[in-house]
Amino acid sequence: MRYVIGVEYDGTGFQGWQRLGAANTDGPATLQAALERALGAVADQRIDTVCAGRTDAGVHARCQVVHFDSPVQREPRAWVLGTTTALPASMCLRWCVVGADDFHARFSARARRYRYRILNRPMRPALDRHQLAWERRPLDAAAMHRAAQALLGEHDFGAFRTVHCQASHARRDLQAISVQREGDEVRIEVRANAFLHHMVRNIVGSLLLVGRGVQPPDWIGEVLQTRDRRLVGPTAPAQGLCFLCPLYPPDCGLPGEVTLEPPSPGTRP
Amino acid sequence: MRYVIGVEYDGTGFQGWQRLGAANTDGPATLQAALERALGAVADQRIDTVCAGRTDAGVHARCQVVHFDSPVQREPRAWVLGTTTALPASMCLRWCVVGADDFHARFSARARRYRYRILNRPMRPALDRHQLAWERRPLDAAAMHRAAQALLGEHDFGAFRTVHCQASHARRDLQAISVQREGDEVRIEVRANAFLHHMVRNIVGSLLLVGRGVQPPDWIGEVLQTRDRRLVGPTAPAQGLCFLCPLYPPDCGLPGEVTLEPPSPGTRP
Repeated sequence: MRYVIGVEYDGTGFQGWQRLGAANTDGPATLQAALERALGAVADQRIDTVCAGRTDAGVHARCQVVHFDSPVQREPRAWVLGTTTALPASMCLRWCVVGADDFHARFSARARRYRYRILNRPMRPALDRHQLAWERRPLDAAAMHRAAQALLGEHDFGAFRTVHCQASHARRDLQAISVQREGDEVRIEVRANAFLHHMVRNIVGSLLLVGRGVQPPDWIGEVLQTRDRRLVGPTAPAQGLCFLCPLYPPDCGLPGEVTLEPPSPGTRP
Repeated sequence: MRYVIGVEYDGTGFQGWQRLGAANTDGPATLQAALERALGAVADQRIDTVCAGRTDAGVHARCQVVHFDSPVQREPRAWVLGTTTALPASMCLRWCVVGADDFHARFSARARRYRYRILNRPMRPALDRHQLAWERRPLDAAAMHRAAQALLGEHDFGAFRTVHCQASHARRDLQAISVQREGDEVRIEVRANAFLHHMVRNIVGSLLLVGRGVQPPDWIGEVLQTRDRRLVGPTAPAQGLCFLCPLYPPDCGLPGEVTLEPPSPGTRP
């Protein structure tokens, strides 16, 4: 039986999503190992998981989506309650549904949404410090927003990937990006069909140069076209980043928060 | 010279504001002791502080206001930078100004604002878990808001104080209270001239009974009138509570976020 779960986590103190090595009981603290240990306690046998998008050390998730196959059947509610009880306080299951046999948390996803939070004031954060990047110099959020719109559409985002990125190609379809100020916080939200390694953090690092006035807004589009990763701004720190959710086709049977709107009648699929 | 500072803190892991005993270098971790230690490092001698409102263990503050007298003079900017550097990561100074000789962080304050956050969903929080209370049963936030309006105005709030409250009388002027839902979070904001010990948390605990349908909305006003603390709901947990700020008279010379609006022409002072 294939199960699909929504997982919320505070990535502080974890070495990222991906389990290191085969064992899920030893080694450095990874989110995947902690989850598989908890699922294994409910199943009473080893469970392997696949997630929608692996997150780096210190990155958070509002609703990571994960699938796993279990030889033992449990009610979805039992998976949620039992697994959450076995998880550390910084992780919880939000929901569980039975998935189609061919559902794949990573390959079935049509889009992913991320949010990046920057505290923009002279003094470092105390409250929410594990979820905020900090920029003491004033940021022009409106200029950052205008600049970011050059990234919309399908492009080769090679300039914004890391040298360690293992994707076979760098073409991604960036569907929406916004930069908004709320008091002394600047929030960047971005949605694409998929992301390269460090792509969001490199986009944010580059937008920060625009926000500070170091680069003009047009520069973002120029960097994109060069595909030269030596030109982008410094990778923004991990703790400001939160994986909001992946999005799946309307007929996937998953909760609304991770499901695309069905196409309106008359629009092309 | 009297200085006034704005202090932000994450109260997680602290035993509340108030220093226990005379020493500010030993004993349990209190916010006051940590602050006085950091100020003392900048002044190079012992500094004693007075705050606008002492917070309990686990309660946070967006802008606690504190005054202290220092025999050594420093630029306000030097106090802010030096003290923040010496503070633990969970605390920071937001600003510092020179205060009038008769300014008193507690007695000069005309009002205080608090916010209480409740995550209202079946599963416990992972993200923001140190700043959220958790109620798994559905809450009717609109009913809570209506019920809360019975508390507006000057009343004897004896029903909502703890047995340990040391205030000489329980009359307080509650100036505003609102309950609003944002997604699966219910936020309560309240402002009064001053608060009794545990008053916000006991109001929240009672509103939760209304939100769950255990008590009708009218019950809040009835509890208020009895002044009987045995009738109120269970004290809501500390971590959901954040002291937003105190408010001082318009001519106090403090930053806008802690200053009352001047009265409009034609209104009575």
